[in-house]
This record gives sequence, C-alpha cells and structure tokens, in this order.
Amino acid sequence: MRAVRYHGTRDIRVEGEVEEPVCGVGEVKIRPAFVGICGSDIHEYLHGPATVPCTPHPITGEQMSVTLGHEFSGTIIEIGEGMTKAKVGDRVAVKPNLFDGGCAACLGGWVNCRKNFGFVGFSGDAGGLSDYVVVKEKQAIRLPEGFPLNLGALVEPLTVAWHVVNHGSIQDARTALVVGAGPIGLAVLLVLKARGMESMVVTEISPERRELASTLGATHVLDPQTEDVVTKVCAMTGDAGADVAFECSAVQAGLDTAVKGIRARGTVTIVSLYGEKPVIDALGVVLREKHVAGAVIYEDGDFEAAIEAIWSGMSIST
Amino acid sequence: MRAVRYHGTRDIRVEGEVEEPVCGVGEVKIRPAFVGICGSDIHEYLHGPATVPCTPHPITGEQMSVTLGHEFSGTIIEIGEGMTKAKVGDRVAVKPNLFDGGCAACLGGWVNCRKNFGFVGFSGDAGGLSDYVVVKEKQAIRLPEGFPLNLGALVEPLTVAWHVVNHGSIQDARTALVVGAGPIGLAVLLVLKARGMESMVVTEISPERRELASTLGATHVLDPQTEDVVTKVCAMTGDAGADVAFECSAVQAGLDTAVKGIRARGTVTIVSLYGEKPVIDALGVVLREKHVAGAVIYEDGDFEAAIEAIWSGMSIST
Repeated sequence: MRAVRYHGTRDIRVEGEVEEPVCGVGEVKIRPAFVGICGSDIHEYLHGPATVPCTPHPITGEQMSVTLGHEFSGTIIEIGEGMTKAKVGDRVAVKPNLFDGGCAACLGGWVNCRKNFGFVGFSGDAGGLSDYVVVKEKQAIRLPEGFPLNLGALVEPLTVAWHVVNHGSIQDARTALVVGAGPIGLAVLLVLKARGMESMVVTEISPERRELASTLGATHVLDPQTEDVVTKVCAMTGDAGADVAFECSAVQAGLDTAVKGIRARGTVTIVSLYGEKPVIDALGVVLREKHVAGAVIYEDGDFEAAIEAIWSGMSIST
Repeated sequence: MRAVRYHGTRDIRVEGEVEEPVCGVGEVKIRPAFVGICGSDIHEYLHGPATVPCTPHPITGEQMSVTLGHEFSGTIIEIGEGMTKAKVGDRVAVKPNLFDGGCAACLGGWVNCRKNFGFVGFSGDAGGLSDYVVVKEKQAIRLPEGFPLNLGALVEPLTVAWHVVNHGSIQDARTALVVGAGPIGLAVLLVLKARGMESMVVTEISPERRELASTLGATHVLDPQTEDVVTKVCAMTGDAGADVAFECSAVQAGLDTAVKGIRARGTVTIVSLYGEKPVIDALGVVLREKHVAGAVIYEDGDFEAAIEAIWSGMSIST
C-alpha cells in the first residue's frame, strides 16, 4: 500500500510498497479519508526527529522510519476478532494516543500525563497518511450519522482544545485571553465560545489569523506588535485582568502577556510545547496568587464530548 | 520615644527622639514585647530600599525614613474612640498589612493580592521596633490567655505558612516536598505536620537547617548538593513524585527541583519572592499537567486560625 513516511529532518517520502497492516484481535482496519497536518508534524519535518523514535519505541517497539498522520477520519473496512462495538462501514475519528498503562501517572488515573507517550502517526508503522491503518477498537471513535469526514479530521485538534478548556478553571470566568491564534488557539476560542464565555480576547501577530479569530467569534482581537495587550485587557475588565488565559503561542512574549494579563488568582493554562524553557515572572505569580498550569492531549471521554459539541452546533453557536 | 529607623542601604539607626504616635479613632496603641527580624528586613538592609517607599506611600502617605518591625507581639496600653472589642491590657499579635481597599483585587475579595501593598514596619512611621506603635483595632489580634508573647512574635511568619498551605492543594496529598528550610520553609513544615501530612521531604543546603528540619518533624531531609532530590522523591512515591511542593528557596535550582519533584497534576506553590525571573520547565508543566501557583501573606481569618493551631498544639503534635 502507499504511505507517507518520515525518514528524518526534511525527509518525508511517499512510498508505494509499504506492507499492508494486518487487523489483529481487538483491532480495526481503517481506510483514512481526511488527514490534518499538525504543527508537530511541521516541527518534526523541520527540526526532528523529536517525537519520532530513533530506537525501538517503548509501546510500539518500532522506530524510524514511521508513517505520519495523527489527525484523521476514515471508514472501518475490517474488524478483528473480539469486536464488541465497531462494525465494518463505521465512520470514525481516530484517537491516536497509545497506551501502555504501567507508569505512576497511569496508575493515578492521569493517562494523558504518562511518561511513555505513543501516537499513531509518530511512533511506528501505523499512521493516517496511508491507504490503510490498523488501530485498537477503542481508538476508533464513531462519528454521528451524517457527520462529514472532513470535519472528522478536525476532531483531534478540537479535542485538544476541549480538554484544555476543561482544565482551564473557566468556572465563573467571564473574560478569557487567548494568546496566539494558530489552529489550537482558534480551537480554544471555538470551545470557549461553545462553553458560553462572555468575553474572548485574542492576541495574534498575523493579520490573517486575527481576521480568522474575528470571524470565529472573538469579542476583541489585538495585535501585540502595535497594541499594549495587558493595558487593553485591564481596561476591559475594571483594571482587574482576564479571569483566565490560554497560552497557545509558544513564545516568551506570549507567556509574559498571559501571566501579566490575568487578574489576581487567575489561571494561565499553557497549551504550547516550548522548545526552550521560558522565564516566568515568579514574583508577579506570588504577589497576585496567580496559577500557571499545563494541559496536554485528552482523557477518556474527551473525543466523544468534542464530537457531541461539534455535532450539536455548540462550537458554532453565537 | 525610641525607634529603629531605616534610612537606606545598610543604614539602620536606633533613634531616641522619635515622636510618640497618637491613638486615633478606631485605633489602639501597643507597647511591643517581642519583634522578629524577617528575611525581607535583611533584604531591605542589604539591597533596599525596595519595599520601603522613597515617595509618599499610597496608603500611609509617609516615606523613608521609616520604623522597622512587622513580626511582633505586644500589649495594648491605650484605645482610641469607637473601640468595640479591644481593651487596655490585651496581649496581641499584630497583623501588619495595611489596606486601602480600592483596587480590582480588593473588590474581588482577594485583599492579600491587592496592587498597593502597605505594611506596619515598612511603609511609614509605625513599626514594631519602637516603644509604642499605633495600629487599627482590627490589626491587633488578641492572643489567648497564657499565650507567651515571644511566641506571639512568631504568629506572623506562621500565618504566612498557614496561608500558603491552605492554598497548596493539599487535599488528598500524602507526600509534600519543601524546598528550602529557612524560617518560612520550616514554618510550612510545621503547618503541614499540623495538617496531618503523611510524608514531608525537606531539601536544604545548610546542615544546621537540615538538623532543625529533622527536629521539627520532617520525615526525610535531603542535601541537594550531594543527593539527587528528584530521584529520591520518586523512589519514595512509587516513581510518581510528591503530590505537592512548596518552593521556599527563591533560587533557580529550587524551582527546578520543585517542578520536577512533583507528580503529574501535582502543585508547586511558590512562597519565595524572586529578585530575578527564573526560567521554568514549561514543557514539563504541560506534558504532565502540573500546576504552579503563588501564595502571599494572609487573608482575613488566617491570623486567628494560626493562633488557634499553635495554641491547640497542632503545630507541635507528633
């Protein structure tokens, strides 16, 4: 079969003679329909291998070269033995994270924080950018009847945002500051809107992304190159600051804006994956009892909740 | 009267002709008994003026030189008009923070996070290191009958620790890591013990302070210069990490240890006042959904709760 294979920095090949995967017990074989290209794919292309394993991956046992593609939808074309729910013909979004279940975080119930990360699309031969991919039955999340498969490829990044917002202390929050309007920042904006956030301030340097943020429902869109974001947010909030911020920029200035832009006892949730350690205004965090937290991928139930939210129109309601 | 006055870097003078304060409406005049010297007094001596105002303070209207002393006990010797509770002869610990009540944090109910900080002992003529000091009635917290006045001078730093632990997400925590065993780190240790923490790991470079931490009930005491604290804490906790950490060292290595030493979804509460912005392992915070929060001084009720805890023996129980 065909597959898009990653061989190292700036070396991605469309190969035609890749062995077709076999559908084992408790597994399903999927024909991918739409596959998103994630920021981490681009990062891997430009600067990797980082997530791609150069020695046998602790979960898959496989290593570079690997098949890319972890944001995808498709149709089940075969089911292995022991299937209880999945059926041939099911249209699904794939939850790409791979479990091993052995570390302290897993035992604590925080499987998304476990030490050994694995992903379909990064950690071995299975990836969405191929003619066929085999995953565990529980990774194939059924889409509702009529749910478009192209939208299905957006379920994964929207689920990231869904999880982030769930962990972002938004209870009682009226104003949220979203720093960076890349795909994840915009997805966070959509989820905040779906969850009824009153005021959503987006700060972004790219005019195209600012425009998109406006279209998608941001109540205020700021250009940090020409506007003092913290002053503006304070002016909007009775000199308090935003209740919560979501740091989606992965740059120092973004973290500074998020930490400074929230009110006393507000929360910054960092979504970005920082390549280098940023500095943090620890004194400001202390004197105003701010919270800085991280959120990563998703937990059990997040995919289903995000699909439900998309399908019920929550994320596009006004 | 006599007073210990701060005039600038390395310039503290014991003066004999300071004007005695007048006790106004809603105020009490106190004769201080015992006065602690805080790390921030030392910082002010060596590197100040920082907290001491060089222009009229927004709350007191006063400026350098000022009278020092904010950790103190004493006896009320005069009460102003309009007193409802305080009586001459009351033995009190003084809650030194000064209110103005106007900022967004105050309006939000987070008076300890307000923009304009003021302190008896830093922000004007009133300070504990004097023959007499006048404070608002509500700042004079009555000590229980028989509560020693020397212990009364420790109420303020113990209240700082009380507040910190209250904000340190200790519910369900079994292992706490205390980084730095200066007076506040040791006070945090005492409060953790009082609150029933099962395992308290203290890391500290000074042998004297390590000894003191052992005496005060730390279950494990580590020297970060010769031991790998993170590895040890993980070994104690089934490879998980501590549930919570308290960063009381104000140094980069301390923050690194605290962030790395907690489990997935654990919380680091920073107590230290950092002179320079430290770097933070934002990627580690994200991938393991850690929380980093600040805690500062105290809220209404904290002084009374700390006094009650000390007096009921909670902080010295085994």
